[in-house]
Amino acid sequence: MRNSSRGVVSPFIVMDVMERARAAEASGRRIIHMEVGQPGTPAPAGARQALSASLEREALGYTVALGLPALRERIAALYGDWYGVDLDPSRVVVTAGSSGAFLLAFTALFDAGDRVGIGRPGYPSYRQILKALSLQPVEFVTQAEDRFQPRPEDIRGAGLAGMLVASPGNPTGTMLDHGALSALIDAAKGEGAAFISDEIYHGIEYDAKAVTALEVTDEVYVINSFSKYFSMTGWRIGWMVVPDDHVRIIERLAQNLFICAPHAAQVAALAALDCGAELEANRAVYARNRQLMIDGLPRAGFTKVAPPDGAFYVYADVSDLTDDSVSLAADILDQAGVAVTPGVDFDPERGHQALRFSYAGSTEDIEEGLHRLAAYMASRS
Amino acid sequence: MRNSSRGVVSPFIVMDVMERARAAEASGRRIIHMEVGQPGTPAPAGARQALSASLEREALGYTVALGLPALRERIAALYGDWYGVDLDPSRVVVTAGSSGAFLLAFTALFDAGDRVGIGRPGYPSYRQILKALSLQPVEFVTQAEDRFQPRPEDIRGAGLAGMLVASPGNPTGTMLDHGALSALIDAAKGEGAAFISDEIYHGIEYDAKAVTALEVTDEVYVINSFSKYFSMTGWRIGWMVVPDDHVRIIERLAQNLFICAPHAAQVAALAALDCGAELEANRAVYARNRQLMIDGLPRAGFTKVAPPDGAFYVYADVSDLTDDSVSLAADILDQAGVAVTPGVDFDPERGHQALRFSYAGSTEDIEEGLHRLAAYMASRS
Repeated sequence: MRNSSRGVVSPFIVMDVMERARAAEASGRRIIHMEVGQPGTPAPAGARQALSASLEREALGYTVALGLPALRERIAALYGDWYGVDLDPSRVVVTAGSSGAFLLAFTALFDAGDRVGIGRPGYPSYRQILKALSLQPVEFVTQAEDRFQPRPEDIRGAGLAGMLVASPGNPTGTMLDHGALSALIDAAKGEGAAFISDEIYHGIEYDAKAVTALEVTDEVYVINSFSKYFSMTGWRIGWMVVPDDHVRIIERLAQNLFICAPHAAQVAALAALDCGAELEANRAVYARNRQLMIDGLPRAGFTKVAPPDGAFYVYADVSDLTDDSVSLAADILDQAGVAVTPGVDFDPERGHQALRFSYAGSTEDIEEGLHRLAAYMASRS
Repeated sequence: MRNSSRGVVSPFIVMDVMERARAAEASGRRIIHMEVGQPGTPAPAGARQALSASLEREALGYTVALGLPALRERIAALYGDWYGVDLDPSRVVVTAGSSGAFLLAFTALFDAGDRVGIGRPGYPSYRQILKALSLQPVEFVTQAEDRFQPRPEDIRGAGLAGMLVASPGNPTGTMLDHGALSALIDAAKGEGAAFISDEIYHGIEYDAKAVTALEVTDEVYVINSFSKYFSMTGWRIGWMVVPDDHVRIIERLAQNLFICAPHAAQVAALAALDCGAELEANRAVYARNRQLMIDGLPRAGFTKVAPPDGAFYVYADVSDLTDDSVSLAADILDQAGVAVTPGVDFDPERGHQALRFSYAGSTEDIEEGLHRLAAYMASRS
């Protein structure tokens, strides 16, 4: 049967790592998972309790396309709590994860053939989703000295219809401060390009607070999710904030493309917003894990790491060790029993000299993983 | 801020009906809902219990992109139970509702600009999703004497990259038998066009069993959902069966576009597949309601109705009453307190002379609704 050209998408290299890790575990070996991009914790207890209660009481049919009004209001209030931003709940759109938000944003903003700028290294699905929607990803190679974020001069004259920036970024965990974010937004505006701010790791930050694009302007799409800080990956629930005059466009698209975000997940998410103590305890674990990684990775021999500002990843330049991060990751898995992600998923070129380590797991696992990595590196030299 | 042309989607006319109905209810009036496209029942008790138990026990993180293996196996087994078809579970893809399945199918099969055939009247989101993906909907006007289904000769020479057919159809509830479905599939194959069979209303059928396209060929995309027969609309969980050599394409697209279908919904859906008694009791209610409608609508004065083979809709030709079904629907709501859907959402032209009545509600509501409709029609004459 026929297939399209836009639907032919490259595989994730990390899938091979995960499959090898699964096979090793099936044969009885204990593997430390530093490849995963999700919290090891479940949804907060309060969220699960709220859903259990609701299952007895409600039919959980379709919601309106923009999401439960109470959830939209509570998300808007979060912008007051987190950033001191006064946000009208009518601009909040509840989505089927940030994945659903990207599909809505890209179809609402761009026509087939349009060019959309993204940073490299970056979340690999950006370019795949863009491609699947017949859009042209334009990748800007970013530098460690810019904390792996694009520069305003990348945007100028690049013929972009849109620019997508993530802060904190994946795989690097690096952030844009208010000045740097403003400069990027201004540059996009100057080009007539829409600006999309991926803020999915907000809430998981360490020394400084993450800045939302809504602190800079209302003329922006902001995408966020309950997956990371709220520890609800598998629930597929997120949100988007759009300019006033885009709400109706998004509403109609959402009615047709999704009908609504999962109702059960909306109920759980609403309660999760009131589970601050549990979520802050999770963050304290990430902070402890991050410190272990910042101390332990260089000691093990991974010396070129930029300390992450947020999220739960460390991106390591391993150019002093290899030109083939895929083989290195395979060797680390085989020899040390630690699963890590080769950089090629995030950066098809320089990623051959990079690894991503996730510290989203338990502190015990991080300690064991670092111990194993140190022993592995010692055995290499 | 800029927006795309493909993202500008017409509103659903029925939304105005629903908003008026909501306002009437807010003012204390009792409205009978014959406009809704979803069961009034919740997910089966066994499904809700399974999820409640799982919430205590499991983290419910991301699943693999194609869905929980146990769920894929159980769905494959359903094809044995329902149709006597032996289906390899590896061809089953768990999706975020049929909405997610359409997005995956359309991006996997078609490139921007491709022409995709659909019947008119039909589910309004078909053409909107196609448009949002820069595809060209090609609408074939169907006739009551063909049970509102396209003909093979519509397909021949139409320059299609794909053909999408729904049986039972929405808004008509009419079905294709094995011969008619085979003829359409053959015609599409002759054109080199992919064939997509929307089987979302399967399980809700009355005199004859619905035929799956998999009884005809494996070279087809079949889309189904837990929303209707399994009474799980708001859960956003469905599935797709694809040809063997398309599984990897869909897997990679799903990884990038959706990551996975909602995990909680997958757990509930797996249990729903074993809730046969409750689901058959629901169907018995639909069957009773259908008979009430077939008897009651003509008696009330809606004489041009084709008895539906499946689903829970009656599509009535009201050309003897009006050329303006939107006003008629508004008048029925105001005068009789019954919400119905004007046909224009399903057929922008002939729909001005049609109404869709849903009988997915309780039998009590259907009886009351028919009583009110009869009184309304009597008052008109």
